[in-house]
Amino acid sequence: MSWQAVVLTLFPEMFPGFLGMSLAGRALEQGVWDLRTHDLRPHGLGRHRAVDDTPFGGGAGMVMRPDVADSALAAATEGRDPLPVAYLTPRGRRLDQDMVRDLAAGPGLVLLCGRFEGIDERVLEARNVRQISVGDFVLSGGEPAALLLLDAVVRLLPGVMGAGERSAEEESFSDGLLEYPHYTRPADWAGRAVPPVLLSGHHGAIAAWRRERSEQDTRERRPDLWAAHEKRGAASTFLPGGAGHRN
Amino acid sequence: MSWQAVVLTLFPEMFPGFLGMSLAGRALEQGVWDLRTHDLRPHGLGRHRAVDDTPFGGGAGMVMRPDVADSALAAATEGRDPLPVAYLTPRGRRLDQDMVRDLAAGPGLVLLCGRFEGIDERVLEARNVRQISVGDFVLSGGEPAALLLLDAVVRLLPGVMGAGERSAEEESFSDGLLEYPHYTRPADWAGRAVPPVLLSGHHGAIAAWRRERSEQDTRERRPDLWAAHEKRGAASTFLPGGAGHRN
Repeated sequence: MSWQAVVLTLFPEMFPGFLGMSLAGRALEQGVWDLRTHDLRPHGLGRHRAVDDTPFGGGAGMVMRPDVADSALAAATEGRDPLPVAYLTPRGRRLDQDMVRDLAAGPGLVLLCGRFEGIDERVLEARNVRQISVGDFVLSGGEPAALLLLDAVVRLLPGVMGAGERSAEEESFSDGLLEYPHYTRPADWAGRAVPPVLLSGHHGAIAAWRRERSEQDTRERRPDLWAAHEKRGAASTFLPGGAGHRN
Repeated sequence: MSWQAVVLTLFPEMFPGFLGMSLAGRALEQGVWDLRTHDLRPHGLGRHRAVDDTPFGGGAGMVMRPDVADSALAAATEGRDPLPVAYLTPRGRRLDQDMVRDLAAGPGLVLLCGRFEGIDERVLEARNVRQISVGDFVLSGGEPAALLLLDAVVRLLPGVMGAGERSAEEESFSDGLLEYPHYTRPADWAGRAVPPVLLSGHHGAIAAWRRERSEQDTRERRPDLWAAHEKRGAASTFLPGGAGHRN
């Protein structure tokens, strides 16, 4: 059974986009996953098929009407096995690799792409829609975020990547630290040598060097991850019987 | 002068993708911004134009060679005014709306898209390449992240959006809290009423309700943002002369 992606959008022509190429594109052709787009526009009201209206309480921007979003969700999911529904918004929980893994392990996902200021909150409550954010920045709409999320999920589906490649890349966030820097041939390039330890063949020393660089880069670039890492370390110190250890 | 986007990639056919449609597409046609892709493949070595090699120190995956990336960067930027160069990687600093604003205010950006395990660190140092992460998840390559970043930047370029629309959406992160939920017509839908205060016409009460919901949703959904918000609040309490205030 294919992993099912259903996308509700005012811009169906944006799909599959880059997901129709390279690894994701081959997996789409092979039926590893399936992508259906559903145009929101025909669910709009009146002669102009309006999907949005001004916000109650005032303010700039337009808000997608609950009846329009609900009608589109009903039509897109009719006669299908139930799928989780997500709305991509900066108001959501932050997407991370754990969430990507959970989604890939499930049957698929319905993605509701907003434009304008947002979508009426009532339809999100009524249909139990998960709100997911891909980051603390503003996009032109939900479509770029939907493509990004699907890219992250599809690469984890069985058969899309080689197992070795997959496990290696998964290491990126395995212990909540940034990955160490990478080096390849030539060993000397433009007057810059590869760190000698990496050529030593001493596995223990290489692992220690990589660990140190992971910690250093995490401290400098991602104080948020470093703080969480420190907190976990400190917490384990207080485990009864001294069983805790800093990994 | 157009904002200049230069993308180095093994998949030039992924661009402009959705950036050729809707608002970003019209701005591209109108010359508000300019997009050039540069294929990395011809810079590869040998009969197969190999761009990558195994990592020094061992481990799975392949690493892009520094000489190949350097040659591509030299060719792509030759005869141009200097532009900042960014490499999209989970090892980078996290993209946020401040970074998007800074990039939009500059002359443009060269984006180096990796595939495989990463790019040799020496070429990133030698060419002073900023490392930027769009989030703590693993993508098939740098291309989806590049498209996302460009989408966020392009919408801020002069003339792409209406000023009202822009300022409204910018509010999303203006004080480090999530935005409040939105409601529009109909006032009663499927047995769910809009929160009555939003229909009251009482601007002070509406602002207070929105503030409360922003705080509540931030606490529940984004403990990281909430902690940073609390810290700022606590810090301002200690300003000399009691000048600090919680906004």
